[in-house]
Amino acid sequence: MADSRVTQELALIDAYWRAANYLAVGQIYLYDNPLLRQPLTKEHIKPRLLGHWGTTPGLNLIYAHLNRIIKKHDLDMIYVTGPGHGGPALVANAYLEGTYSEVYPNISQDVEGMKRLFTQFSFPGGIPSHVAPETPGSIHEGGELGYALSHAYGAAFDNPDLIVACVVGDGEAETGPMATSWHSNKFLNPVTDGVVLPILHLNGYKIANPCVLARISHDELDQLFRGYGYTPYFVEGDEPAKVHEAMAATLDQVVAEIGRIKADAAASGVIERPRWPMIVLRTPKGWTCPKEIDGKRTEGYWRSHQVPMGEMHANPSHVRLLDEWMRSYGPEELFDDGGRLRQELAELAPKGKRRMSANPHSNGGLLLKDLRLPDYRDYAVTVSSPGETIAESTRAMGTFLRDVMKLNQDARNFRLFSPDENNSNRWQDALEVTNRAWLGDIYPYDDHLAPDGRVMEMLSEHQCQGWLEGYLLTGRHGFFSCYEAFIHIIDSMFNQHAKWLKVCNDIPWRQPVASLNYLLSSHVWRQDHNGFSHQDPGFIDHVVNKKAEVVRVYLPPDANCLLSVTDHCLRSRNYVNVIVAGKQPAPQWLTMEEAIRHCTAGLGIWEWASNDKGTEPDVVMACCGDVPTLETLAAVQLLHTHAPDLRIRVVNVVNLMTLQPPSEHPHGMSDHDFDALFTTDKPIIFAFHGYPWLIHRLTYRRHGHANLHVRGYKEEGTTSTPFDMCVMNDLDRFHLVEDVIDRVPKLGSRAAYAKQAVRDKLMEHKDYIARNGDDMPEIAGWRWGRLEAAAAQGSTEADNV
Amino acid sequence: MADSRVTQELALIDAYWRAANYLAVGQIYLYDNPLLRQPLTKEHIKPRLLGHWGTTPGLNLIYAHLNRIIKKHDLDMIYVTGPGHGGPALVANAYLEGTYSEVYPNISQDVEGMKRLFTQFSFPGGIPSHVAPETPGSIHEGGELGYALSHAYGAAFDNPDLIVACVVGDGEAETGPMATSWHSNKFLNPVTDGVVLPILHLNGYKIANPCVLARISHDELDQLFRGYGYTPYFVEGDEPAKVHEAMAATLDQVVAEIGRIKADAAASGVIERPRWPMIVLRTPKGWTCPKEIDGKRTEGYWRSHQVPMGEMHANPSHVRLLDEWMRSYGPEELFDDGGRLRQELAELAPKGKRRMSANPHSNGGLLLKDLRLPDYRDYAVTVSSPGETIAESTRAMGTFLRDVMKLNQDARNFRLFSPDENNSNRWQDALEVTNRAWLGDIYPYDDHLAPDGRVMEMLSEHQCQGWLEGYLLTGRHGFFSCYEAFIHIIDSMFNQHAKWLKVCNDIPWRQPVASLNYLLSSHVWRQDHNGFSHQDPGFIDHVVNKKAEVVRVYLPPDANCLLSVTDHCLRSRNYVNVIVAGKQPAPQWLTMEEAIRHCTAGLGIWEWASNDKGTEPDVVMACCGDVPTLETLAAVQLLHTHAPDLRIRVVNVVNLMTLQPPSEHPHGMSDHDFDALFTTDKPIIFAFHGYPWLIHRLTYRRHGHANLHVRGYKEEGTTSTPFDMCVMNDLDRFHLVEDVIDRVPKLGSRAAYAKQAVRDKLMEHKDYIARNGDDMPEIAGWRWGRLEAAAAQGSTEADNV
Repeated sequence: MADSRVTQELALIDAYWRAANYLAVGQIYLYDNPLLRQPLTKEHIKPRLLGHWGTTPGLNLIYAHLNRIIKKHDLDMIYVTGPGHGGPALVANAYLEGTYSEVYPNISQDVEGMKRLFTQFSFPGGIPSHVAPETPGSIHEGGELGYALSHAYGAAFDNPDLIVACVVGDGEAETGPMATSWHSNKFLNPVTDGVVLPILHLNGYKIANPCVLARISHDELDQLFRGYGYTPYFVEGDEPAKVHEAMAATLDQVVAEIGRIKADAAASGVIERPRWPMIVLRTPKGWTCPKEIDGKRTEGYWRSHQVPMGEMHANPSHVRLLDEWMRSYGPEELFDDGGRLRQELAELAPKGKRRMSANPHSNGGLLLKDLRLPDYRDYAVTVSSPGETIAESTRAMGTFLRDVMKLNQDARNFRLFSPDENNSNRWQDALEVTNRAWLGDIYPYDDHLAPDGRVMEMLSEHQCQGWLEGYLLTGRHGFFSCYEAFIHIIDSMFNQHAKWLKVCNDIPWRQPVASLNYLLSSHVWRQDHNGFSHQDPGFIDHVVNKKAEVVRVYLPPDANCLLSVTDHCLRSRNYVNVIVAGKQPAPQWLTMEEAIRHCTAGLGIWEWASNDKGTEPDVVMACCGDVPTLETLAAVQLLHTHAPDLRIRVVNVVNLMTLQPPSEHPHGMSDHDFDALFTTDKPIIFAFHGYPWLIHRLTYRRHGHANLHVRGYKEEGTTSTPFDMCVMNDLDRFHLVEDVIDRVPKLGSRAAYAKQAVRDKLMEHKDYIARNGDDMPEIAGWRWGRLEAAAAQGSTEADNV
Repeated sequence: MADSRVTQELALIDAYWRAANYLAVGQIYLYDNPLLRQPLTKEHIKPRLLGHWGTTPGLNLIYAHLNRIIKKHDLDMIYVTGPGHGGPALVANAYLEGTYSEVYPNISQDVEGMKRLFTQFSFPGGIPSHVAPETPGSIHEGGELGYALSHAYGAAFDNPDLIVACVVGDGEAETGPMATSWHSNKFLNPVTDGVVLPILHLNGYKIANPCVLARISHDELDQLFRGYGYTPYFVEGDEPAKVHEAMAATLDQVVAEIGRIKADAAASGVIERPRWPMIVLRTPKGWTCPKEIDGKRTEGYWRSHQVPMGEMHANPSHVRLLDEWMRSYGPEELFDDGGRLRQELAELAPKGKRRMSANPHSNGGLLLKDLRLPDYRDYAVTVSSPGETIAESTRAMGTFLRDVMKLNQDARNFRLFSPDENNSNRWQDALEVTNRAWLGDIYPYDDHLAPDGRVMEMLSEHQCQGWLEGYLLTGRHGFFSCYEAFIHIIDSMFNQHAKWLKVCNDIPWRQPVASLNYLLSSHVWRQDHNGFSHQDPGFIDHVVNKKAEVVRVYLPPDANCLLSVTDHCLRSRNYVNVIVAGKQPAPQWLTMEEAIRHCTAGLGIWEWASNDKGTEPDVVMACCGDVPTLETLAAVQLLHTHAPDLRIRVVNVVNLMTLQPPSEHPHGMSDHDFDALFTTDKPIIFAFHGYPWLIHRLTYRRHGHANLHVRGYKEEGTTSTPFDMCVMNDLDRFHLVEDVIDRVPKLGSRAAYAKQAVRDKLMEHKDYIARNGDDMPEIAGWRWGRLEAAAAQGSTEADNV
């Protein structure tokens, strides 16, 4: 470009930037008089001022310059806003590009529309202050901070033509998740994936403090990002003209560099990890707002973080200052008489789907294709009679997922995510058809590492969650497998995603995306190697606090149920599905046909284990989760054998949400059906996988609740035997039998004797494991199938539980 | 040192290392024959093999070399084990130093003791597989991974003579919290704080994958740590003799460098951030175990992560291999006939409190001193009549904490922690007597930044939590203030700390430490600037899943209650105390005398707001949390005014745990007292700060539970007015009145009319805020004090709610 053309182009970009800044200030402050056609008075100003100015001018600057480079090279690009509280910036840009008026026709491209644009911001009945689901072009709200880059990389995977520009705030850069997410470049394939362009925005301040990365030396900063594997480019300044020049030149360089890397990789056939470019942009916080307000430093300081000045209704000098501030952008040069952006500025923006606010990748449901799914029934574990087959449930799931992976290799829209637990959780079969993504050094003896692997493993639950969210929100599918206890690490990220989905349900132009699916394995009852620190089944407690419309929780008792549930989850949309299932060899209960029926109902009577045969039972033995199911059946067998006249009904629960009233959850069972299953007046001994209070919380309105006695995890544990874990928490077969004895009057005089027998058994167990370090053979090798033999002699031992 | 002396010393250190490795393998495998005095047979081997070998030889190597340098310079040093699953290593070293036998006399320094040492490991009734609270010398279990360095820095703060050696596993190094915790050096004062010596142990593999930092170039690794502000020293190799030499030389260099930095800082008086040394140690995973097992690569590979070989009872060749492996350490050279470590090796370890396993900093309760506390009553907000005074509750708390800070400046044992929210949460008064710790660059206009500040602010909840835990576990005091929604970021860290405390309660030699205190503010009901993403009151749901003995939850309704609770928390030991309180100007209800009585009881009737006057009420209006209390009182006032014959009892709950039965929590109220307060048959309308189900969960066994109707946060919210937040969640005064109308038969024919009046009010509210963007003056300015005037005309409007 000739110099004068450059100058002219940059002058236009500056005007575009000023327009965006003007619209942002207007959103924060103005209720009326949007173009300042009249002198500003306090009546034009909102009664409550809410929002964040500090990050906004930087976000606008980046946006304007990315537009330039998109147009120049016809780039397919989206914009991930780490400082997501800079809502005014992204809304302003979507409005300038016309997208906003397309999806919200009432916010039109005229004075009236601009007034509404301003008024609605952070206003009752209007829009949130953040880059929320309501904001076109966003896949990232950023409320929590920390995973903008993880989202960006998730969006880039399998989108080879996409560039994801990702602004990282220097506050956010202090969070743990962000600090490790820079390493995502070790998992990005330069040929088959897209590109992430991180832009670290050093505006120097958080709410009240400077930022760490803004206060280390240039050399350290340079070394840090080279150490992370990037080539950093620095753009620094506080004079707009110079910064425009530097930013434009740097983006030219960076985009050329990206093109060279992509071309080289495609040509060479040797996939090595490139040193991708990243940009460090250092500009003042709250840039272009008043330098001082009431004699206090504001521009380039933390005081500009939210609303730089308040008291607009009490302090006329503030109104004058705002008037000056807004007029400094020259609104009359930016908008025509009708209030529309002037044509020469409007032409700076890309057109159609090239607009970052209208790029379909940012509304991933538009691009979503159903997965090709094999028939999950083909993966059934053969169960000739309940409890005879032993299998690892999650391994069967892994085999099914292997073939899901295989069928969708060409579509390249399915990945598995795990913090180094893929094989531990028994999904190793997936590695028969793909590899683990790895762009670090690879040694000859390494195991299934490859640059084009589709199993994503990094020891960071934050990364797994962030990558998967980014992948889903751009219209693809995935599954996250995690140790149950450590899924709590992403509690807060789950919150944000569930909130995002809840809001999306009310936005007609947001298309449904694939559900976020979790397998939680290596669960509380079988942390043999790790003990107490690895025991926490509370994620599901956390999940059920979120809106019922978006959360689902399943605890399949065996492999066939797990397969049925997995298939269901992979077909679902806009949910968070949580599946809890064990990986250890365990008895299998249901044939595939039975499993399908059981999972479709969500819960049901296991007739083959019950002996109430159409009559009212004496006791209901309910169970939910694989280990509690096993212990319940062992308890039932003891009772059948030793007290055969006791009528027992066994109810198993797969879909936890069925326990709630239908008013609380769409899967909730009617009271009528619930009463029919659980009775209204008989004791219910409920063995539960998690914290027992969750069952009470879900059922407290049920008629039979007063008779409900729940056993579950009560925070007792250490490195011990599997059965001892149950004993420590009173969930074992003997305690369950004791619970029945305590609650069924029918046992009469036999009760005391039976109780002593059960306690003797527990002492025997304690004594045995202390001597042998392992469970008694009769417990470790217990099988339901032995019932017949035991039952045959049952009546003679009726008093000997 | 002369060369031969060096060689001789290193040969002894090698022997010490072999002894530790021998003891570690023994713990994982052996049940008997601890010194291999007989040929090894399968009968000598444990039935179940549990534990982690992979990291163990590295941990042992570091330990032996740190011992050398401790003795050489008489250093005060503790050892934080990032790879905390390497329990066998730390237990072995504590045993070799004699500490283990001192605290567990049965694990004696002889053959019998060694047998017990081996047997107890990961064995029922024995000890956990991790570096658990049971392990002398540990302040860090490391179950979750990610915050070893945060713990280390927390331990170093205000311990100027302490060096905290911190081993960081290369798996753990991939986590987010760890990735940002390297930046802790920007908060460490070289004069008044101690030193952290990070040792990144690159053993190359996690459970099944290589580690990112082990697979980037030397240059990148070097740049990364220089970028983090350290001077890295590399020790790399797989030949023990050479590694010993390099490790010893490097530690000599590093300790000299630390000494130089400390001396320079003390001498110069100018406190600048030093480039502290750190060590990168690259040695094979599972070093010294069989190179191959069954033809598969094991040493230096992920297969050595846990137990390198199993099937010991079925495969005689494995027994032979184990025999060879263990004998390769030369046990007969290491232990004397009695089974005791040979004298020349025992002398390598430091003595007494210099032993890292016996350093009192690792059993912080030994060093704990009570805080000097001002009389919190002196900070009381004056309340002449309920609701008349308006104050920001957390600001009063901040003033009290300022003086706590002041009184303990000399003791240097109190700090405040916050992710850039100290001032936002209204603790700014603390900055009158101290500063924010900051070792980055400082500009002239910066606000209260100083190298010796005692307010710790970094935008990472993980860092705040990790630092505070490290600070508490080494015997000091602190308080963590956080936005309520984002405390979920450390859910899992809280879990681990609560579990640590629970276990410590059963270990007699672990002395009690100060409680971990949280203030959660900027809470769900007042996230005016941020909206939905910042709304989640569920941390307390998470907390109450942990053992009742260690968790406490308080929701003080006003400043004086908050002061009383704060004082109580600062005096308590071994708890996690969670306080939820608002920061916005709000009516104050109780005088300090009343507040003390109320907080001591934990809950109680507010007689001044009730009109049941010793009779049975028609309805109980219960409330918990500041905003629900306000709305309840506003509802009560409406009812008093418009239905004065309705007998209302107002109950406020401060201590949430009182609601549980005494069998569930030590603060639980007896059923008798509960019934007296809440009645057994009258409707209870309970306005709760958090998710409503939590109240049901706590009270489902209470007699009156069927009559309990709870309002709380049900995941509805956006950027709107404070009162509208209540309306969206049905927690507002009008909905509460409606709830009463629906449930009190006494209102008879007036009910329908009153309900319509209430609904009109809600419509008026919606209409008003949509037009004005703010709450109606009669709501925003509502005062309880107006009751008298309203009540005077009450009876004439009795039908007009």
